[in-house]
Amino acid sequence: MNMNVPNIDLPRVVVIGCGFAGLKLIQKIDSRYYQVVLIDKNNYHTFQPLMYQVATSGLEPDSIVYPIRKVFKGKQHFHFRMAEVEAVDRVQKEVLTNIGKIQYDHLVVATGAVTNFFGLSNIEKYGYTMKSLVESLDLRSIILQNFEKALNTSDLKEREKYMNFVIVGAGATGIELAGTLAELKRYILPKDYPDLDIRQMQIHLVEAADRVLPAMSENASAKSHKFLKKLGINIWLNTFVKDYDGCTAHTSKGDFETETLVWTAGVVGAPIANLEDRLNKGNRLICNEFNQVIDQEDIFAIGDVSAIEQEGEGRGHAMLASVAGQQGAQLGKNFNALAKGKDMKPFVYNDRGTMATIGRNRAVVDLPFYEFSGILAWFIWMFLHLMLLVGFRNRLVVFVNWCWSYLKYDQGLRLIIRKVERQEDQVEA
Amino acid sequence: MNMNVPNIDLPRVVVIGCGFAGLKLIQKIDSRYYQVVLIDKNNYHTFQPLMYQVATSGLEPDSIVYPIRKVFKGKQHFHFRMAEVEAVDRVQKEVLTNIGKIQYDHLVVATGAVTNFFGLSNIEKYGYTMKSLVESLDLRSIILQNFEKALNTSDLKEREKYMNFVIVGAGATGIELAGTLAELKRYILPKDYPDLDIRQMQIHLVEAADRVLPAMSENASAKSHKFLKKLGINIWLNTFVKDYDGCTAHTSKGDFETETLVWTAGVVGAPIANLEDRLNKGNRLICNEFNQVIDQEDIFAIGDVSAIEQEGEGRGHAMLASVAGQQGAQLGKNFNALAKGKDMKPFVYNDRGTMATIGRNRAVVDLPFYEFSGILAWFIWMFLHLMLLVGFRNRLVVFVNWCWSYLKYDQGLRLIIRKVERQEDQVEA
Repeated sequence: MNMNVPNIDLPRVVVIGCGFAGLKLIQKIDSRYYQVVLIDKNNYHTFQPLMYQVATSGLEPDSIVYPIRKVFKGKQHFHFRMAEVEAVDRVQKEVLTNIGKIQYDHLVVATGAVTNFFGLSNIEKYGYTMKSLVESLDLRSIILQNFEKALNTSDLKEREKYMNFVIVGAGATGIELAGTLAELKRYILPKDYPDLDIRQMQIHLVEAADRVLPAMSENASAKSHKFLKKLGINIWLNTFVKDYDGCTAHTSKGDFETETLVWTAGVVGAPIANLEDRLNKGNRLICNEFNQVIDQEDIFAIGDVSAIEQEGEGRGHAMLASVAGQQGAQLGKNFNALAKGKDMKPFVYNDRGTMATIGRNRAVVDLPFYEFSGILAWFIWMFLHLMLLVGFRNRLVVFVNWCWSYLKYDQGLRLIIRKVERQEDQVEA
Repeated sequence: MNMNVPNIDLPRVVVIGCGFAGLKLIQKIDSRYYQVVLIDKNNYHTFQPLMYQVATSGLEPDSIVYPIRKVFKGKQHFHFRMAEVEAVDRVQKEVLTNIGKIQYDHLVVATGAVTNFFGLSNIEKYGYTMKSLVESLDLRSIILQNFEKALNTSDLKEREKYMNFVIVGAGATGIELAGTLAELKRYILPKDYPDLDIRQMQIHLVEAADRVLPAMSENASAKSHKFLKKLGINIWLNTFVKDYDGCTAHTSKGDFETETLVWTAGVVGAPIANLEDRLNKGNRLICNEFNQVIDQEDIFAIGDVSAIEQEGEGRGHAMLASVAGQQGAQLGKNFNALAKGKDMKPFVYNDRGTMATIGRNRAVVDLPFYEFSGILAWFIWMFLHLMLLVGFRNRLVVFVNWCWSYLKYDQGLRLIIRKVERQEDQVEA
């Protein structure tokens, strides 16, 4: 069955995935020269950098996502289809999906990344992740359910399990989550749970490298280490998680009793099927400097799923929203250039800096020639993230929420909207 | 196992359910005289009158609910436990729940109402309802998924199924839902789905009585009938739904092809188990004028689940938020009076009027001595509903959303966050 998309007299670009890369690409591509068909399994674009605030009751899920149809409202020769991609047929030049197949002239894979469990299947089974909106919502419910459960036992050993949180990976996501949890502990939970001794709540941040934020500058690491300590977070460097059975996390530094292990320790590319011969070790599609998959002129890859060969290494750029956005925009311009008979331009990453935040008033910023931290960094972090959100309504709602939390020391949204059960519980039920 | 609640030297009031009735009761009850234990299956209070806006992408779910722990923050001798009530043991004076049992001195049943399918089991299986936040969220996803499906077929007959909406019951919920759907059709969907002929979308409102809004004045019925017609809604009065197989709704006036039948045609009380001998025909607990369950001095019922015997009829007051709130407040005062050795006062409903809204700029209001409709009624409806929401943050966020939709003719939240499958699909999967 063919997908129900009109055939017109323009070359067709099929784009898979509407993250930062896909979004920017489609915004740039000129409808006079191409028909664009976008496929995504969701009908919204997700602003991943704020996902941890959904998980910690700070923001509504609806504020950090934006309907795809609305982003591209009025765009000519553009068609969005909500579908799951099954594979690509490179010979027939077709993408196969659960709602039918579609022919392409140019295919752009912008499918992003998924969590890398490094083969630890128990962690995949019992741990929690934050790579999608649904996962973040589940984590929010889990965190709150744990406090309800802690309340209902007088066995201190059992309580410990519910009130210990182990976060694996001290990258930006890990420290942001740890920081927000620490603030829940300080400002919110003692008011919500007067019957619980909240001092029992422990947040453990486990990192395999010898410093937190290993991808940022030494200065940013040192500062954020200090900030995290101040918030009462237990930091375990040079520490590996070996196994986790849903109750006990076994690490190279000892065991932690916990019901909640959040895994933010790594990602790998999430390419579509039938491109296995073009992948590097990180499961990313190896591309030339035009984001063209090697030896595959009609297929492009952008964002986390792509790895531009740098000096023959094939390691690719850092998996960051800013890289993805720039690659998408560049490829859009390159498509337009091709249509006009001009040459494509190679992708060059313009590093405008990286940043991370650790609770209220504290953030670290690495600019190419300057590093700083503290309250100014924090305000810049907030301002930039507000501006990067798609849609004025979202910005306004997020802004209202942030002002509220800041002034009242209170997150508004401590709601268990879905009950989440572990896999083995579900089987029993 | 006993629930983990401290035993103190005060009579214990156990309240089941935190709707309008339970909420008002606990706000009024004096902590110097009673220990209060509140049990609810959710950790939030839901503002039911705005649920239909969640179902139609107008509001975030988080904006119309409020964390219970936050409502009663700082209240002395108050304990909230998130649990499912299984039954009451009237001899032992205990409530049995999934997290243990708890003794009561006074029990207050404030468990509200559930959908009444009048024995039509196929409608229960295939139809959609809006009695809880989760159901409303599911309905939101279903409505949007249908348009995605309609897009993916070129078979006009099949499309019809996805684009026909049948709403059964023309009470406030039914007409509010129909009105909002009609506005989605007029303002939003043509922009979102340029590939679809939105004129194909049909909204059918089916009502067994001989007028819409049968519980309101004749004037309000006539006005809202006119408003609904103007919005292009097909109204079927004196019409009964007989059966529905997930594709075709069979009614006394003929068949409708539809994937989406929303049932808002009736509710019954939702009492707890072991009180069956105290129920009236509507499954509500028959009470005296003090909301005391008949022949059961230590058990009270308030809100939708209670029916105060009026002239021996046992029919009870209308199932309205305003009745529930007033009964809760009165019972709270009565408990305080009892503690001071004073007499309880009988409940007298103070009817401040009823209202319903039908899309932008249109509402009907019945005051005890005056009826009116139109844009002023609509602004009053909005103002009152904003003020009735619990929590300033919620009011602000809802206000922002409403202004946004009003000025831009655009609902912000057309997001399919959960994929909902019908029951039989799930079995296949």
